[in-house]
Amino acid sequence: MAKIKISETVLRDAHQSLVATRMKTEEMSPILETLDKVGYHSLEVWGGATFDACLRFLNEDPWERLRLIRKHVKHTKLQMLLRGQNLLGYKHYSDDVVSEFVKKAIANGIDIIRIFDALNDARNLETALKTTKKEGGHAQAAISYTISPAHNTEHYLKVAKQMVDMGADSICVKDMSGILTPYYAFELITMLKKTVKVPIQLHTHYTSGIASMTYLKAIEAGVDVVDCAISPMALGTSQPPTEPLVATLQRTQYDTGLSLEVLNQIADHFRPIRDKYLETKQLDPKVLGVDVNALVYQVPGGMLSNLVSQLKMQNAVDKYEEVLKEVPRVREDLGFPPLVTPMSQMVGTQAVFNVVLGERYKMVPKEIKAYVRGEYGRPTVEIKEEIRRKIIGNEDVIVCRPADLIPSQLETIKNEMKEYFEQEEDVLSYALFPQVALEYFKYRQAKKYQIDSSCADKEQKTYPV
Amino acid sequence: MAKIKISETVLRDAHQSLVATRMKTEEMSPILETLDKVGYHSLEVWGGATFDACLRFLNEDPWERLRLIRKHVKHTKLQMLLRGQNLLGYKHYSDDVVSEFVKKAIANGIDIIRIFDALNDARNLETALKTTKKEGGHAQAAISYTISPAHNTEHYLKVAKQMVDMGADSICVKDMSGILTPYYAFELITMLKKTVKVPIQLHTHYTSGIASMTYLKAIEAGVDVVDCAISPMALGTSQPPTEPLVATLQRTQYDTGLSLEVLNQIADHFRPIRDKYLETKQLDPKVLGVDVNALVYQVPGGMLSNLVSQLKMQNAVDKYEEVLKEVPRVREDLGFPPLVTPMSQMVGTQAVFNVVLGERYKMVPKEIKAYVRGEYGRPTVEIKEEIRRKIIGNEDVIVCRPADLIPSQLETIKNEMKEYFEQEEDVLSYALFPQVALEYFKYRQAKKYQIDSSCADKEQKTYPV
Ligand SMILES: [Co+2]
Ligand SMILES: [Co+2]
Repeated sequence: MAKIKISETVLRDAHQSLVATRMKTEEMSPILETLDKVGYHSLEVWGGATFDACLRFLNEDPWERLRLIRKHVKHTKLQMLLRGQNLLGYKHYSDDVVSEFVKKAIANGIDIIRIFDALNDARNLETALKTTKKEGGHAQAAISYTISPAHNTEHYLKVAKQMVDMGADSICVKDMSGILTPYYAFELITMLKKTVKVPIQLHTHYTSGIASMTYLKAIEAGVDVVDCAISPMALGTSQPPTEPLVATLQRTQYDTGLSLEVLNQIADHFRPIRDKYLETKQLDPKVLGVDVNALVYQVPGGMLSNLVSQLKMQNAVDKYEEVLKEVPRVREDLGFPPLVTPMSQMVGTQAVFNVVLGERYKMVPKEIKAYVRGEYGRPTVEIKEEIRRKIIGNEDVIVCRPADLIPSQLETIKNEMKEYFEQEEDVLSYALFPQVALEYFKYRQAKKYQIDSSCADKEQKTYPV
Repeated sequence: MAKIKISETVLRDAHQSLVATRMKTEEMSPILETLDKVGYHSLEVWGGATFDACLRFLNEDPWERLRLIRKHVKHTKLQMLLRGQNLLGYKHYSDDVVSEFVKKAIANGIDIIRIFDALNDARNLETALKTTKKEGGHAQAAISYTISPAHNTEHYLKVAKQMVDMGADSICVKDMSGILTPYYAFELITMLKKTVKVPIQLHTHYTSGIASMTYLKAIEAGVDVVDCAISPMALGTSQPPTEPLVATLQRTQYDTGLSLEVLNQIADHFRPIRDKYLETKQLDPKVLGVDVNALVYQVPGGMLSNLVSQLKMQNAVDKYEEVLKEVPRVREDLGFPPLVTPMSQMVGTQAVFNVVLGERYKMVPKEIKAYVRGEYGRPTVEIKEEIRRKIIGNEDVIVCRPADLIPSQLETIKNEMKEYFEQEEDVLSYALFPQVALEYFKYRQAKKYQIDSSCADKEQKTYPV
């Protein structure tokens, strides 16, 4: 039977999308054993922005969180999101750091690693994917979904085949902007199922209000797993709600077999948490609404408001319509990168520069230059020579995998942070977010020795007079 | 081509469902001409609770609102919701009042009247439906959708046929609780299309999070029209959002042909209004969430919280589980009325009485007695003699159409309110809500003559010492 499986995102993407990743471990722990009872395909609990947020905002050790979740979730597979060679950070890391990170994630309890690259450059997934398999994990390769003349079904099928050839245990279609429409989802999933033999999972966001319909058509096309969030943490910029989909599929050939009564217990746990977030304004009701800008203009709503504020700073708000037309042109020039972080900011800024300065590519941010040099990977469509020249002149373009040019970093990093070392995992926290990890290590040390480190510092110093 | 048509509910059901019908005419008027440009099948603008709310809370004449809307909406059909023989009130009115009301609604600008009866007793639609047709209006008969062993496809097909035989120009499946699941909608709409020849419209609410999926499957089954609300006033207890459905159907055989750019202008108008409602707490973010209770327990969320507060007043909160089990039994005893106002309150109260008093039907509210006497119409399933005896003893049961027993009222009413008469329509406002209309008439009079009527009253009285 085509029984549909569900991955629950409430412990990762749902709160990352709705409340800037601020859910604390203590808000999760009382419900972990109930979550384990549901019979989900997996629980997405780690990775994405949660690692950074734990250290930076919550004074939590993300590794500790993972171990605690694993302790209480004995049966359900734990899943994480990994940004390919960027891991959970914002730059490419050396292969030894990537391998070690994957190894430790699995050692601490992760079963499934979803690995993606914004440009769909499969080479950027290679090290993470191979290590995952070597360590006995399930390596899911994710295709970043976007809309452009270059991002047609043929492109996605080609990328999926590359990923499977590389050893991917399953494929995820990852629609971070919530722009995959239901009937195209039907077509895409149908073709993917015909083309590759591994399971297909679909990930989307409710942002533009179509996501539940997209899942329904994907399910009819044969998708194996979809990502949902329990209702109090669903909708808006988060995932489609779990319970309505479970109810919809009950007593059909797609029945998930999950119990609405158990799901209701989980909803009962998160409802007061949602209410608290609404009260403290951490959850802005605006993100719960429908934002169709991404469907109408192919530009996400957040990017539109960024453009407006950039133009305001330049006293050029009257240029808004012009900039809006320049965005797709810049995107085309750059080989159609998907408009997600950091590419959306980069393309937006370039479009503003092009219009406000009255000359295209007169000024170019250094990130765009790095991108054109190939430091992010290979664009979907090759950048035209004329544009490349305008942006980086005669500078060389990297044709190999960007990480091939990065020397091993692990030993240096170990050495740098050795005075704070308490567990092997600390090296990786420091590798990804040196400044933030250091602050956390100091906090941890102070707490451990019952010393307020800021006081201690003061004692060794003289007070400024 | 199976082009799908959309009725936009933002001016009636959407604000009735989200902000207790408090949208003012001045919040509507600036966008009316844009709404007229979209190409909707119809705009639902009147009836339901808007009539009462205009008079009671907004100091507005509902007839005046209708005329203003008609003045600015020159091309799009205007639609209203009418509770059969109850009109817009809460009791059965005499036929002369019903006829006169329908006549005046059409004379003031209404094109389509959606007429329903909570018990699906077609006799309760008859007068309104026949007058609508006589006055040149489109008479849409609505089937109230609910879930029970008696409410199967056969039942709905039978009701639909009765309605068409009676002269209905179209049929609406009206799912006021948002419990029509997508795959059952597919089956029901398929069968309705096979059984009757008139257009089929579907109305639902997003309450339990399935509504957009329900529309999609209904559309695939051949439904002609669906009810949506522009996104800032959609979701939660309101309708599914318009724009995502339009985007979903674009470039498919179901394409609505509506322009997302024009819809975006409408969304831009209502977004700050939504924000204002959120700020003033008229719009509680809670109603924007998903409430799956109606799917899990077949009992709407609002009814559950009512039960809890009734039990609290009786110091019997520990009886909650027992009452929850008693609700479906009472519903069965009463011939499976749908759990919507006022039946949900009646069934809930009876269930509480039955459990708390330790004897079933020892105490029975007078509304339940009236219902069992047949004063509301014919229940879907005949009430068993044993239950009937327990509730009304040997009292007679009405077998004719309840309104057949109500003598003409219009002349008496005219006479009662003649000192406030300014237009024929005032008689109807007074017929429906005597107390509330009177207050409004006084307000209007005072405003007209620039007199503060409460001051005037005070002048004729002596002050209490
Ligand atoms: Co996501
Ligand atoms: Co409604």
